[in-house]
Amino acid sequence: MSDNTICLQLKKLLSSEAQVQPGDAVDARLLTDFLGYEKGHAEVYVKAACAEDVRAAVAFACEHRMSVTVRAAGTNLVGSTIPQGGLVLDVSGMNRILELDEENRTITVEPGVLLCDLQAYVEERGLFYPPDPAEKNATVGGNIATNAGGMRAVKYGVTRDYVLGLEVVTPDGRLVDLGSKCLKDSTGLNLKQLFIGSEGTLGVITRCVLRLIDKPESTCHALVGFKSLREAITSVNEIKQALLEPTAIEFIERKVIALGEQFTGKSFPMPECSAYLVVTFDGRVGEPDHRLQRCREVLEPFHNIEFLPLTDPAISSDVWTVRSALAKAVQTSGLWEPVDTVVPLSDIATFVDYVSELSEKSGIRILAFGHAGDGNVHLCILKDDLPVEKWPDTLTYILSSLYRRVYELKGKVAAEHGLGRHKRNYFLKEVDPQELALMRAVKAAFDPHNLFNPHSGYSL
Amino acid sequence: MSDNTICLQLKKLLSSEAQVQPGDAVDARLLTDFLGYEKGHAEVYVKAACAEDVRAAVAFACEHRMSVTVRAAGTNLVGSTIPQGGLVLDVSGMNRILELDEENRTITVEPGVLLCDLQAYVEERGLFYPPDPAEKNATVGGNIATNAGGMRAVKYGVTRDYVLGLEVVTPDGRLVDLGSKCLKDSTGLNLKQLFIGSEGTLGVITRCVLRLIDKPESTCHALVGFKSLREAITSVNEIKQALLEPTAIEFIERKVIALGEQFTGKSFPMPECSAYLVVTFDGRVGEPDHRLQRCREVLEPFHNIEFLPLTDPAISSDVWTVRSALAKAVQTSGLWEPVDTVVPLSDIATFVDYVSELSEKSGIRILAFGHAGDGNVHLCILKDDLPVEKWPDTLTYILSSLYRRVYELKGKVAAEHGLGRHKRNYFLKEVDPQELALMRAVKAAFDPHNLFNPHSGYSL
Repeated sequence: MSDNTICLQLKKLLSSEAQVQPGDAVDARLLTDFLGYEKGHAEVYVKAACAEDVRAAVAFACEHRMSVTVRAAGTNLVGSTIPQGGLVLDVSGMNRILELDEENRTITVEPGVLLCDLQAYVEERGLFYPPDPAEKNATVGGNIATNAGGMRAVKYGVTRDYVLGLEVVTPDGRLVDLGSKCLKDSTGLNLKQLFIGSEGTLGVITRCVLRLIDKPESTCHALVGFKSLREAITSVNEIKQALLEPTAIEFIERKVIALGEQFTGKSFPMPECSAYLVVTFDGRVGEPDHRLQRCREVLEPFHNIEFLPLTDPAISSDVWTVRSALAKAVQTSGLWEPVDTVVPLSDIATFVDYVSELSEKSGIRILAFGHAGDGNVHLCILKDDLPVEKWPDTLTYILSSLYRRVYELKGKVAAEHGLGRHKRNYFLKEVDPQELALMRAVKAAFDPHNLFNPHSGYSL
Repeated sequence: MSDNTICLQLKKLLSSEAQVQPGDAVDARLLTDFLGYEKGHAEVYVKAACAEDVRAAVAFACEHRMSVTVRAAGTNLVGSTIPQGGLVLDVSGMNRILELDEENRTITVEPGVLLCDLQAYVEERGLFYPPDPAEKNATVGGNIATNAGGMRAVKYGVTRDYVLGLEVVTPDGRLVDLGSKCLKDSTGLNLKQLFIGSEGTLGVITRCVLRLIDKPESTCHALVGFKSLREAITSVNEIKQALLEPTAIEFIERKVIALGEQFTGKSFPMPECSAYLVVTFDGRVGEPDHRLQRCREVLEPFHNIEFLPLTDPAISSDVWTVRSALAKAVQTSGLWEPVDTVVPLSDIATFVDYVSELSEKSGIRILAFGHAGDGNVHLCILKDDLPVEKWPDTLTYILSSLYRRVYELKGKVAAEHGLGRHKRNYFLKEVDPQELALMRAVKAAFDPHNLFNPHSGYSL
């Protein structure tokens, strides 16, 4: 069947609002991820307008044994949205907010709603969606598919903790409603939990019921400057032990900040420090300020720090602008590879030391920043001036070494970005074969023809 | 193969500390649940001493196609531990605390550790395990197998939210390590999440890594008396909207309290009220008292309440003694059936009103108490003087009516007890067939011969 025939058949099955195009006619940006290094190819591209479009497109793909790659904003950093043939199913047009239920503090949305739009919508109404991944232009569906984490995970947990219900289309083209608005559930196997973080390998999310909380009355931040990154990281435990309930504890090296400053044109305070923590507190009026003050008292006796409460709105805005722009800033520096590992809290400093050694030994710049409060270390490995033909082997060497060390420290390849195509081989090298076999058996139960993201993550 | 031959063969495979007995030789209490109405039967009973015993026993059962019913403290209320032949695998002897990791705030335990022992152990060391199911003599493994909830779920979430890692034995007799000490994870399918709440249908939990937090410095409670249960329940939303972060909000009817008083010999304050909320706050010194005071200010303008801060240790102790003894008090009143439904918060009052009507109409006493802060309504349906031969049909009528109403309100059969054998038929009547088919497909991926709790929950 030619691509054009497929398009004609699909058009008949889908709503008039759906878009259908042959794969070779679509914008190449729809066949790649945020990095854009590798372009995929597809027989057909479908932009669904509703759950019924998704159902019909999936049923068609299943019947014709076409693989299905789901995408929306395409902000992923791991190659999850690089199709290797088959059907690209774009749900970015399904971006309606369907219901705000203030009494139950839930919001029901389509998967293509952007995180920034969701956050703005609920905060205008005095409510709060705690998960806060750095990429605000990602979609809610993508956040759920990767179990995205973000900065506020220290206090509030990750996306998984706020998903009450999911409507999904399974690989055989059936709409299934998983979950509810209930806050507790031990009614049979929890398939909703299995879907969260499954990166499009088990089906397509078509509707999401999210749990909200009341918006904190007050939020405050402090920037804490340290002489070294190790000192910054070892202080995290002191903050956590002081019962201060920090909302977020981010760490950033000075050399990373410099990139962000260049990119945004904003300047970051305390340029003489080697590393920073940005500490956030929120709660009822008065409480966060009190906790911030207490945090300073906890740290000052033990560290030679600079402590700057971010009370000046202009300085605060600059700090967050620089912090939020890091991935984009690195992107402009040329070829790079993002890393999203997680290790136990006790081993962050050990791991970051190892990264520094590896960087020195190999002569490759590796920048570290991330979520010090939950062990999620982001690295940017930069090609810089290395000849492009040496990059693939060098990168493989660096990544193999890094992930080996991560597993020695009982960490994991992916904290919040997922595995996609880019982390797949490193994951396959380190994962317990029994665990992998179980993952694949579960996948086969949902997707016996291995059509959904077959080249991604743990898939066969 | 006779039961004695099975025992002899198993003894050779297991450690010298393991116990093996023919099923008809063991205490009948090991073949039933907490209610004890129905006795099961088994070919062989194995009390495992270590994970390797579990692995060997499961491999043997798999080879000989024997069903496996896992048990420990046997505190479940839903018939999960009533075997229908095969092997009973008791892990209550695997009750060692293996490691407390203070830096990562994790504790690693065997599944047979009792909840009360876990809580005492960590609290002595300034740490805190937030899940707080009412039955403190349940085991941690049982809590995980049912995703047990409890009172503090309003602030802290349920058991699921504190399980970082699980070592399990799968139905083919393999030890698999799922999870880690990491606080974030999006590395492939999350099989650990699938195991939580799976009620022994996917395998056996042999080791648990649990997340701890720092122990709150201060906890305070208030008893709030209302003229009616509906008024008590509608006030819950007012408390939640006031940004007070309540730890627990329990509701109890006066008629239930009377039973608890009789059973414990303790007296409950404010006997003239029809219903109560017990509201709990915790945190840093000073904060909970402030929140308690604020709670009073929020409620008093709208309700004709009595508000009693439980500052007197003797009164406080009596209140909790009576509350914790409710299930046991009901147990002494004769035949009864526990119900553990959950509905969206907005529908608790509607549901409880329905329960009252059903109780009046049928002449059957139905007592309501439970977790008003999270929609988890516990009911006790009492036989009282009804002739015993009429009890089964009456109970079926009452339960069918209740669960029908629960599903109309988009609730679920089981909030925190699981389905077991007793809720199975009501669940099967109401569940979406697509969801059930997926659960069974996943089960078949783990347990192709349907050996693990084959007569329980969603199993085929």
